[in-house]
Amino acid sequence: MDQLNIGRLAQQIAFIMELDKLKSILRRSYVTHADRRENSAEHSWHIALAALTLAEHANEPVDVSHVIKLLLIHDIVEIDAGDTFVYDTAGKVDQFDRETLAAKRIFGLLPPEQGATYRKLWQEFEERVTPEAKFARAVDRLLPVLHNCYTQGRGWQEHNIRQGQVLAANRIIEEGSADLWRFIQGKIQDAVDQGFLAEGIGTQQRI
Amino acid sequence: MDQLNIGRLAQQIAFIMELDKLKSILRRSYVTHADRRENSAEHSWHIALAALTLAEHANEPVDVSHVIKLLLIHDIVEIDAGDTFVYDTAGKVDQFDRETLAAKRIFGLLPPEQGATYRKLWQEFEERVTPEAKFARAVDRLLPVLHNCYTQGRGWQEHNIRQGQVLAANRIIEEGSADLWRFIQGKIQDAVDQGFLAEGIGTQQRI
Repeated sequence: MDQLNIGRLAQQIAFIMELDKLKSILRRSYVTHADRRENSAEHSWHIALAALTLAEHANEPVDVSHVIKLLLIHDIVEIDAGDTFVYDTAGKVDQFDRETLAAKRIFGLLPPEQGATYRKLWQEFEERVTPEAKFARAVDRLLPVLHNCYTQGRGWQEHNIRQGQVLAANRIIEEGSADLWRFIQGKIQDAVDQGFLAEGIGTQQRI
Repeated sequence: MDQLNIGRLAQQIAFIMELDKLKSILRRSYVTHADRRENSAEHSWHIALAALTLAEHANEPVDVSHVIKLLLIHDIVEIDAGDTFVYDTAGKVDQFDRETLAAKRIFGLLPPEQGATYRKLWQEFEERVTPEAKFARAVDRLLPVLHNCYTQGRGWQEHNIRQGQVLAANRIIEEGSADLWRFIQGKIQDAVDQGFLAEGIGTQQRI
């Protein structure tokens, strides 16, 4: 490698090691086989494989490799901006500004054209216009609901989340997959019937 | 969805929730921003993004989307077979048999043709014949060495690993990327020079 490439590689390695911090960003959901909250790095792996597995249920045909890239990248900004709970309506107000600053710094560690590519992928996920972004978002929302269903609503109960909030916050799944939305509505109703998700509309809150 | 598709989706969801167990499989390396060992799920996310970032350094042109799929899938078998430390020469003896059984059970949760596709991806990674598999393996080996370099050799020191073992076990990186092998050899030498990797050839051991 010449000096130019050595410099590129050094930037890429610095970015890759910066990513390690995402393993310390905790989400509100619990893993199903240990007594601990999930972190955003393992969540990102999980949703990437879930998308690969569920791609046939997308409303429109999707390039699943592209969906996977969107999902692997979309949470990196949490290294600086932290995880914003889907039911945290107050936290959501400045979420985009916080994450935009984070994207600038973290993707800025890469060689410029590569950083721009990653930033574009992050923006595509956020804008939710392409079929791939819509389906990626659907899977990103599906898994936390499933995790709650498999842990007797632990994340919901800790924050007094009610059925109305779960339905309202996750209706976005329908944009990516009507089939998955129909499926998960059934699971949400099961959670109510089994007594670990309270009925009612809930309230906006800072969580 | 008709009954057939509902059945398929149920199998896919069962597989996806089974994957959650990989978050509880601990590796020997430590994360860099917390006092804990890395788990195989977050590791899989990390190497997938590392491959996307470093693809230009592969010896042969690679389809990076395919590399990513190989990396997301390759550790799933550890749910049953456990993580085998790269320096555990005794554990390596029956590793393939243990992992083959695991692949049969876990990918067997999926609809048959999908399970076969995943199993084929796992086998491709293991066989290390395609350029994608060679590069995927290189990145899978690169990251644990980097993690040791960034944690003052913590994983190495806990198991009395020496420079000779690190070089021998990771030379396989060269098959996927001569550039990354050259780079990481420099890092390994730095670790020796800084006193957190011992010189010498080390011994075979059950770890």
